[in-house]
Amino acid sequence: MRFAVIQGPNLNMLGVREPEVYGALRLEEIQQKLDKAVADLYPATDIKHFQSNHEGQIIDFIHGIHQRCDAIIINPGGLTHTSVSLRDALASVAMPFVEVHLSNVFSRESFRHHSYLSDQAMAVISGAGWRGYLYALDLLYRQCSVEA
Amino acid sequence: MRFAVIQGPNLNMLGVREPEVYGALRLEEIQQKLDKAVADLYPATDIKHFQSNHEGQIIDFIHGIHQRCDAIIINPGGLTHTSVSLRDALASVAMPFVEVHLSNVFSRESFRHHSYLSDQAMAVISGAGWRGYLYALDLLYRQCSVEA
Amino acid sequence: MRFAVIQGPNLNMLGVREPEVYGALRLEEIQQKLDKAVADLYPATDIKHFQSNHEGQIIDFIHGIHQRCDAIIINPGGLTHTSVSLRDALASVAMPFVEVHLSNVFSRESFRHHSYLSDQAMAVISGAGWRGYLYALDLLYRQCSVEA
Amino acid sequence: MRFAVIQGPNLNMLGVREPEVYGALRLEEIQQKLDKAVADLYPATDIKHFQSNHEGQIIDFIHGIHQRCDAIIINPGGLTHTSVSLRDALASVAMPFVEVHLSNVFSRESFRHHSYLSDQAMAVISGAGWRGYLYALDLLYRQCSVEA
Amino acid sequence: MRFAVIQGPNLNMLGVREPEVYGALRLEEIQQKLDKAVADLYPATDIKHFQSNHEGQIIDFIHGIHQRCDAIIINPGGLTHTSVSLRDALASVAMPFVEVHLSNVFSRESFRHHSYLSDQAMAVISGAGWRGYLYALDLLYRQCSVEA
Amino acid sequence: MRFAVIQGPNLNMLGVREPEVYGALRLEEIQQKLDKAVADLYPATDIKHFQSNHEGQIIDFIHGIHQRCDAIIINPGGLTHTSVSLRDALASVAMPFVEVHLSNVFSRESFRHHSYLSDQAMAVISGAGWRGYLYALDLLYRQCSVEA
Amino acid sequence: MRFAVIQGPNLNMLGVREPEVYGALRLEEIQQKLDKAVADLYPATDIKHFQSNHEGQIIDFIHGIHQRCDAIIINPGGLTHTSVSLRDALASVAMPFVEVHLSNVFSRESFRHHSYLSDQAMAVISGAGWRGYLYALDLLYRQCSVEA
Amino acid sequence: MRFAVIQGPNLNMLGVREPEVYGALRLEEIQQKLDKAVADLYPATDIKHFQSNHEGQIIDFIHGIHQRCDAIIINPGGLTHTSVSLRDALASVAMPFVEVHLSNVFSRESFRHHSYLSDQAMAVISGAGWRGYLYALDLLYRQCSVEA
Amino acid sequence: MRFAVIQGPNLNMLGVREPEVYGALRLEEIQQKLDKAVADLYPATDIKHFQSNHEGQIIDFIHGIHQRCDAIIINPGGLTHTSVSLRDALASVAMPFVEVHLSNVFSRESFRHHSYLSDQAMAVISGAGWRGYLYALDLLYRQCSVEA
Amino acid sequence: MRFAVIQGPNLNMLGVREPEVYGALRLEEIQQKLDKAVADLYPATDIKHFQSNHEGQIIDFIHGIHQRCDAIIINPGGLTHTSVSLRDALASVAMPFVEVHLSNVFSRESFRHHSYLSDQAMAVISGAGWRGYLYALDLLYRQCSVEA
Amino acid sequence: MRFAVIQGPNLNMLGVREPEVYGALRLEEIQQKLDKAVADLYPATDIKHFQSNHEGQIIDFIHGIHQRCDAIIINPGGLTHTSVSLRDALASVAMPFVEVHLSNVFSRESFRHHSYLSDQAMAVISGAGWRGYLYALDLLYRQCSVEA
Amino acid sequence: MRFAVIQGPNLNMLGVREPEVYGALRLEEIQQKLDKAVADLYPATDIKHFQSNHEGQIIDFIHGIHQRCDAIIINPGGLTHTSVSLRDALASVAMPFVEVHLSNVFSRESFRHHSYLSDQAMAVISGAGWRGYLYALDLLYRQCSVEA
Repeated sequence: MRFAVIQGPNLNMLGVREPEVYGALRLEEIQQKLDKAVADLYPATDIKHFQSNHEGQIIDFIHGIHQRCDAIIINPGGLTHTSVSLRDALASVAMPFVEVHLSNVFSRESFRHHSYLSDQAMAVISGAGWRGYLYALDLLYRQCSVEA
Repeated sequence: MRFAVIQGPNLNMLGVREPEVYGALRLEEIQQKLDKAVADLYPATDIKHFQSNHEGQIIDFIHGIHQRCDAIIINPGGLTHTSVSLRDALASVAMPFVEVHLSNVFSRESFRHHSYLSDQAMAVISGAGWRGYLYALDLLYRQCSVEA
Repeated sequence: MRFAVIQGPNLNMLGVREPEVYGALRLEEIQQKLDKAVADLYPATDIKHFQSNHEGQIIDFIHGIHQRCDAIIINPGGLTHTSVSLRDALASVAMPFVEVHLSNVFSRESFRHHSYLSDQAMAVISGAGWRGYLYALDLLYRQCSVEA
Repeated sequence: MRFAVIQGPNLNMLGVREPEVYGALRLEEIQQKLDKAVADLYPATDIKHFQSNHEGQIIDFIHGIHQRCDAIIINPGGLTHTSVSLRDALASVAMPFVEVHLSNVFSRESFRHHSYLSDQAMAVISGAGWRGYLYALDLLYRQCSVEA
Repeated sequence: MRFAVIQGPNLNMLGVREPEVYGALRLEEIQQKLDKAVADLYPATDIKHFQSNHEGQIIDFIHGIHQRCDAIIINPGGLTHTSVSLRDALASVAMPFVEVHLSNVFSRESFRHHSYLSDQAMAVISGAGWRGYLYALDLLYRQCSVEA
Repeated sequence: MRFAVIQGPNLNMLGVREPEVYGALRLEEIQQKLDKAVADLYPATDIKHFQSNHEGQIIDFIHGIHQRCDAIIINPGGLTHTSVSLRDALASVAMPFVEVHLSNVFSRESFRHHSYLSDQAMAVISGAGWRGYLYALDLLYRQCSVEA
Repeated sequence: MRFAVIQGPNLNMLGVREPEVYGALRLEEIQQKLDKAVADLYPATDIKHFQSNHEGQIIDFIHGIHQRCDAIIINPGGLTHTSVSLRDALASVAMPFVEVHLSNVFSRESFRHHSYLSDQAMAVISGAGWRGYLYALDLLYRQCSVEA
Repeated sequence: MRFAVIQGPNLNMLGVREPEVYGALRLEEIQQKLDKAVADLYPATDIKHFQSNHEGQIIDFIHGIHQRCDAIIINPGGLTHTSVSLRDALASVAMPFVEVHLSNVFSRESFRHHSYLSDQAMAVISGAGWRGYLYALDLLYRQCSVEA
Repeated sequence: MRFAVIQGPNLNMLGVREPEVYGALRLEEIQQKLDKAVADLYPATDIKHFQSNHEGQIIDFIHGIHQRCDAIIINPGGLTHTSVSLRDALASVAMPFVEVHLSNVFSRESFRHHSYLSDQAMAVISGAGWRGYLYALDLLYRQCSVEA
Repeated sequence: MRFAVIQGPNLNMLGVREPEVYGALRLEEIQQKLDKAVADLYPATDIKHFQSNHEGQIIDFIHGIHQRCDAIIINPGGLTHTSVSLRDALASVAMPFVEVHLSNVFSRESFRHHSYLSDQAMAVISGAGWRGYLYALDLLYRQCSVEA
Repeated sequence: MRFAVIQGPNLNMLGVREPEVYGALRLEEIQQKLDKAVADLYPATDIKHFQSNHEGQIIDFIHGIHQRCDAIIINPGGLTHTSVSLRDALASVAMPFVEVHLSNVFSRESFRHHSYLSDQAMAVISGAGWRGYLYALDLLYRQCSVEA
Repeated sequence: MRFAVIQGPNLNMLGVREPEVYGALRLEEIQQKLDKAVADLYPATDIKHFQSNHEGQIIDFIHGIHQRCDAIIINPGGLTHTSVSLRDALASVAMPFVEVHLSNVFSRESFRHHSYLSDQAMAVISGAGWRGYLYALDLLYRQCSVEA
């Protein structure tokens, strides 16, 4: 099984800035934790990491993994609330995806309560910190195993 | 560590009805899976199950576990969208809680997109099926371990 | 054929209070009129009456008639406008139902113009007084006869 | 007693088109069923049928039955949601009327959930198919008998 | 100078019904009063009366007086709040017009507070009873005299 | 009969500024025209003029004419859209009043389409220029004569 | 004179939790203070206390005091903002009531600014702490004395 | 192939009035251009023209071409934004249709931005002037050829 | 302790006009009752009365009592719903204040349901008639005594 | 004449994915069809194709064709509903443009019903499939020929 | 060049109260700083200071400087969000003006995000403290110099 | 002190296009004026210019100046109204920033009245043309000098 983990705008700043909101881990540390979890727990599984501050690059990346990945874990950052194009990109590759937010978006500004992706997602995990990615991975792994 | 898992109205009907929306497992099966996970993975952990179709009974239950539990996992069912009293009950006991929905509420009717609990929750997990409870349990366990 | 007639909060006060809005008949009188109509007009038909001021009891009752009744006539009272849980309970037993209001809710306060049940109902009858139950009964009887 | 049964725009197409929404009966068949019900069940009762796709003709008709009819049964079709003039016409003749919809308008597009007539109607019956007219007739007959 | 006085739906019922809202005069009496005022006060002035309950006939009439009248006095009745086509008809003949309402529409239901014509009108007179037409006539007469 | 003509904020600038919107007449000229009309046409009639840019002074004035005037003609200027206190002042003296606007407020910014006074007014005249006061005077004169 | 003091959901937790919002007194202490005030200040007066976390029980209680009490003091807790059934229950017994909130609901979340009861209440007292009940009692006592 | 081209209210005034908005061509000239295009470019094709200012006549016409035409090109004029009955008429004959506007409705008043027909149309062409009909014709011709 | 009791626009008309809404007492009578209550019940307490129909005078007054009073009782009249400047004035002197309305504003027009002051007030008392001032005085007296 | 045809995000996926929504043709095939149409039908015409998933690249491209193209055909994809910057880019080069959508956006999610470009466009064509580009080309060609 | 600097309600309290929001300077100190800047930097320039808590006085002042000043710098305080009359006063003298707020109104309550003046202003400066007046002065000086 | 001046989409077109809206200066000219002002007026100050039409590049740039600049002056162009990601980028580097718009956005389309940045900005300057940058620079210089 092959998964892509996509991190949207500003997530490259994790750990460096605002740890009280987003946690103290840097993005690479989160990525290593996920890689380790895959190695330890999910055999025959491949995980591909991607981060960009550019909506266009994320869309290009999603197109590029078409038929090369089985599912997507995505934290769209600020694009969650503003990007119809990202929604369309995910629809265009027709892969199941889980939407993850490190902080609980429902405790924050009201414009963060709407997502252009959530109704298309298999699941939404908000506020579980870096473990949210782990849970998303586990869910997609179980789900894809069943279907395979 | 002591956790309560609260199931709101109509969740006693799980597995019996509408399996295409809520999955094929009955509520007792989900509870057994959680009990087993606790026994296998989380030492020194106690889990208390409760389900009711009565808002008042759920509030009574929450008051009753005050200082007897450390955290709450709650799937409030239809009360999610309508009950200020439930929100106040959770505030009155000041325990961390995770809000779980079996189905992805964001893919359903628009009145299911607003929750009176989410901004008070530690995390929200929507659409992960019965595993959503498992992830909520894991998250609260990790979090409480850190704080303890 | 087996029908349940469910009366929501405050309908036990019928006839006693506010006859100018709800009519002069007491609830028992309405129930007797319905029983008589069944005895006179609808052979092989059973009718079960239930009233409660507790949302939770109404939900419990609906669960309890699952596979024991063929259809439901419901006047949800004030829950019409506020209860997602009641909507979910009716969905969970997947029985056809008719929503009845004694008074014409559309002539009253604007918050009474929205119902959480109406889009799921087979029909809505508002303002026909106690005869509304009679028409609902007739409609469900005709409909179920056709399908049987 | 004299009743008018008014059918608004597009109801002349009943039975011919979209039977899955509006039922398989043609308008004339519904009218015959109502005529037969009157002959069988309601002595000394006269019923006048009218259908038009023209708002103006319906208004003219309503003016014309002023003091010639005792009550109106009306299915305003699409005018339900858009015509203040029709509302005013009914007010101008000050007759009691029942609003009937063959399909359940609350299960359809949101613009069908508002009616310019409902708050002025004695009752609203939505989704009971052609029997809705029958119930409206019965209700007005009982009501007018009481008052006469 | 040539004026058209257009009366919309239900205004043919004036005097007959609801005098407490619209006054006790019949439409013909109002028309005679206006004719008399013209004869007495406004030399070389012609006034053309028209009433219809049909939106289409009113639009046809407006097209027909193109270049045959100098200004329009219009009480659009219920079409005030619903007819873009009537607005377009008035725009298509590019004549100045005054919008008149017998009752004060701002004291009535909220849907009567918006007019599709008012922003295109030279003036709006609401609640002055039949004298509203007189004032509109006087205003247009003075205005056109100045421009002529 | 005794009338007060109240002019709200900025109406002292009439004629001096923005004649393309409000006309070329100065406020005194309008007042003289009204005085002349009274002298010529309305016997036994007294007219009292008042203008202020201060909401409080206008309220004081209205209180002061309590039982000293029979009716009010008011152009509230910008207070039309913002002053509940002015509405309450008019209610407190319980005199009939006509609301007049020189320009057609419905052709202007959307915040000018709502008035806190209109639903309490006997009539509203908008866009008739200075003649609007004349029509208001005539209307109140006729109305009060009938009642007296 | 006989008064009922009804406390809605979560008010049994008073004094125990969140004293910074709701004050440091427990519910029984407030009740004792009210009892004492009655004994000291209001002769021939009876006061009946009731608290429940169940909407249905509160409605049952209200029905039960019909013609057994003269007025109601109610702090509906979270039901204030969500319960049409509670509103209907109060209407069904047609007793004057005063709505009391310990904290100032207008300083809190926006969903607490709307009450389904306030427009039916004699008075609303918000933010006066436990003395709010005292003032409500005094008001009802004075008012009922006048009427008696 | 048989097409109907329906022109709504006020389109009979084309070319005569407001050429800066709607173009300088009269309706007959547009119709002749379409007839010529059919003769030149679309063999075995019949085109039927209809214009009316009456909603009811347009609905009658649509019913009348049921099973006599294969597709409809419609410029509904002001009815675009107000007529549910027209929407229902098009649904009742279940023919594919293209909605055409001469001017670009999205550049005009905000009430012209919503159409009751667009979501049911095969395509919407707005602002292409008389050529919009040509493109609609071409599209329906190609589409129907494919399906035939 | 020193208190100011501020009465907004139109409250000078109390008792004279609309006693069915505001009660039969004149403002001076209310002020005397308050003075008497202070003399009888609250030792070492000074009370300063002020009424104005001018927003600006009320703001000046509030500035003037800065550090000369300990708390404010205010009935802002119509300014309640419209004056940000009054809100700012109260904030600028940072004194605790109680907002009082004689009538129950929540039973009146919807524009009276919002207050620019309430979220800043210590408490809001609506519908308790002149006793509302008494309760506000008592509350502030108790509160300030505790803090002093 | 020189035209640019701009394709926004995800349109590079045409034909590959979701042909039931967007048609079976790949983007290159559409481009070849347009090139062929130009060669066959529009002499002395040059057409420049551009597609990007990056808002910024599309803006750069638009700036780059300033004074190098005469008009633009644009299908902005998901940017239609979210990009003020794209609107501003088109305004900055002041070229006429036609907005094209392959599918009928008005039949899809409500957030697709608003466009930031439409009010600035010469025309909008929605739902005509790839032929929409052809009609846009024809329209701009005719229009520019007239003006040249 | 002659400038007026107008300070709205509560700005006389600057420096005295809430320095954390509005800064520590008193109004006179700000005025002196502006006077000094004028003396130092802007030759042949006159500056006139005005502050009032009365809307009416500010309007009177604006009328009074008509043709006596060239431009206005205004901090309308709470009137920013509520006064159409102030907007109209500025329009009536047709002078360019700059709107200044000491604090950043966009960081405060949502009702402070709308201004009745901003769309009429030459510029808006919010949150620059007392220097905002300086920048406004500089801008108007430069602008008027260019035009002169 | 080190400042970054960031220019968003389409600002590279300044001076070339639409000088009536944005002024006649090219972006480089504005940058030179700012550089000159720094050299003349602000000793020991460094200024870094950046313009991009790509949201992603602007975010990358902001990340890149983290701890290399002390404050930001930003004109976000169309991103002002649409980019949550830009807001988050500014939050992630936690530098004070001033939001500048050349034109007065409050005089333009209503979608330009909301900014995702303003509530996070130190100050907002709108409509002061290129001098807006100068004032922003001065403000940040003074502010940082105070804090340093």
